[in-house]
Amino acid sequence: MVEALTFDVFGTVVDWRGSIQRLGERFGRERGLVVDWGALADAWRAGYRPAMDRVRRGEWPWMNLDHLHRRILDEILPRFGLGGLGESERRTLVRFWHQLDPWPDVVAGLRRLKRRYLVATLSNGHVRLLADMARRAELPWDVILSAELARQYKPDPAVYRTAAELLDLPPSEVMMVAAHGDDLRAAAAVGFRTAFVRRPLEHGEAGRGADEAEAQFDLVAEDFLALAEALGT
Amino acid sequence: MVEALTFDVFGTVVDWRGSIQRLGERFGRERGLVVDWGALADAWRAGYRPAMDRVRRGEWPWMNLDHLHRRILDEILPRFGLGGLGESERRTLVRFWHQLDPWPDVVAGLRRLKRRYLVATLSNGHVRLLADMARRAELPWDVILSAELARQYKPDPAVYRTAAELLDLPPSEVMMVAAHGDDLRAAAAVGFRTAFVRRPLEHGEAGRGADEAEAQFDLVAEDFLALAEALGT
Repeated sequence: MVEALTFDVFGTVVDWRGSIQRLGERFGRERGLVVDWGALADAWRAGYRPAMDRVRRGEWPWMNLDHLHRRILDEILPRFGLGGLGESERRTLVRFWHQLDPWPDVVAGLRRLKRRYLVATLSNGHVRLLADMARRAELPWDVILSAELARQYKPDPAVYRTAAELLDLPPSEVMMVAAHGDDLRAAAAVGFRTAFVRRPLEHGEAGRGADEAEAQFDLVAEDFLALAEALGT
Repeated sequence: MVEALTFDVFGTVVDWRGSIQRLGERFGRERGLVVDWGALADAWRAGYRPAMDRVRRGEWPWMNLDHLHRRILDEILPRFGLGGLGESERRTLVRFWHQLDPWPDVVAGLRRLKRRYLVATLSNGHVRLLADMARRAELPWDVILSAELARQYKPDPAVYRTAAELLDLPPSEVMMVAAHGDDLRAAAAVGFRTAFVRRPLEHGEAGRGADEAEAQFDLVAEDFLALAEALGT
């Protein structure tokens, strides 16, 4: 019944917090900066939802995630003693989000899933960001789909509807895969099937993954290899 | 200067005429039909530009290429003694366009080009058609871009502009690659760089490829391997 799988990316496919922390530490070492990059990653990510909500409510015009990331960054840098960073350094930091590393099961899992299903991103990251990430990490997407194509951010229903339309499938033949319940509930409201993947380390060792009542989803899996198993591929 | 290459697909990447002919011959053999499939492919393709023009002029609403192909097919089938084909057979024929074979240099050429450039489709084929084709033929696209994303057909400038926007690049950093002058001229008018690839067999052994004054393009190449060479990759 399911022909295509659409994947949330930040947290579900890639370890944004660990990656930003690693990239930040290297950036800091090269410049002699002492910063808690894990805390900076958390603060940066915490600004993400409110910023998207402003776009979704129409308070801000449509802008892609690089621009949202930049606005949030400019706001938080002084808190980390980095208010003095210049334009080109701020750009370098924003580009970190194009260079995130996947969880260890992702590439092998996608290769298996791809044998039988069309595999696509469905992220709030823009097309270029997702393409840069895929090139670097060798993520074998069949199609890069993004909130950008609907000029709305998830969980706006237009994002999921646009994706099903571009896949030329009824929503019931598309399964959304995510580590976040709100994303899956919004997809289900449009008619998608849902797979919840547990990512307990998304917020680091001390953080916690999404804690969801799992019976609400069509499938629950530990990682992408378990998802491939559950989907018979 | 160039960061991304956008590729026309029908004729430039895939041999639509030879593929439709091969698929048609198999389809005919299984059903005991005697048809000149090369001529049918030509008639089908000849209806393509007028049909798109009707969409571009607003006479027909936006519809994807499967729907245009179906309308043209319904019109031409009686001419080939195939007016009696039923719904499911017509659907099978329309799906042939998702199963076209690339020219022999394409996969190796794209792999080389991809090392240095972001490689994307930019076709009048819709996203799903291009994804199905890429899966089957193992075309290693970084991104599938399509006229569908602008809901206009090439050579409408909106198609090229939308592509550059999604690549997050100024048009001058994108090179359009095509075997057809009109596509390249429309891309150049929006600011793209242009590469003309000769495909003398696009219309079969007896046909002729596009005959263009080549000095108007930034690059001219025999095939994708020569293009990779010319682009230093």
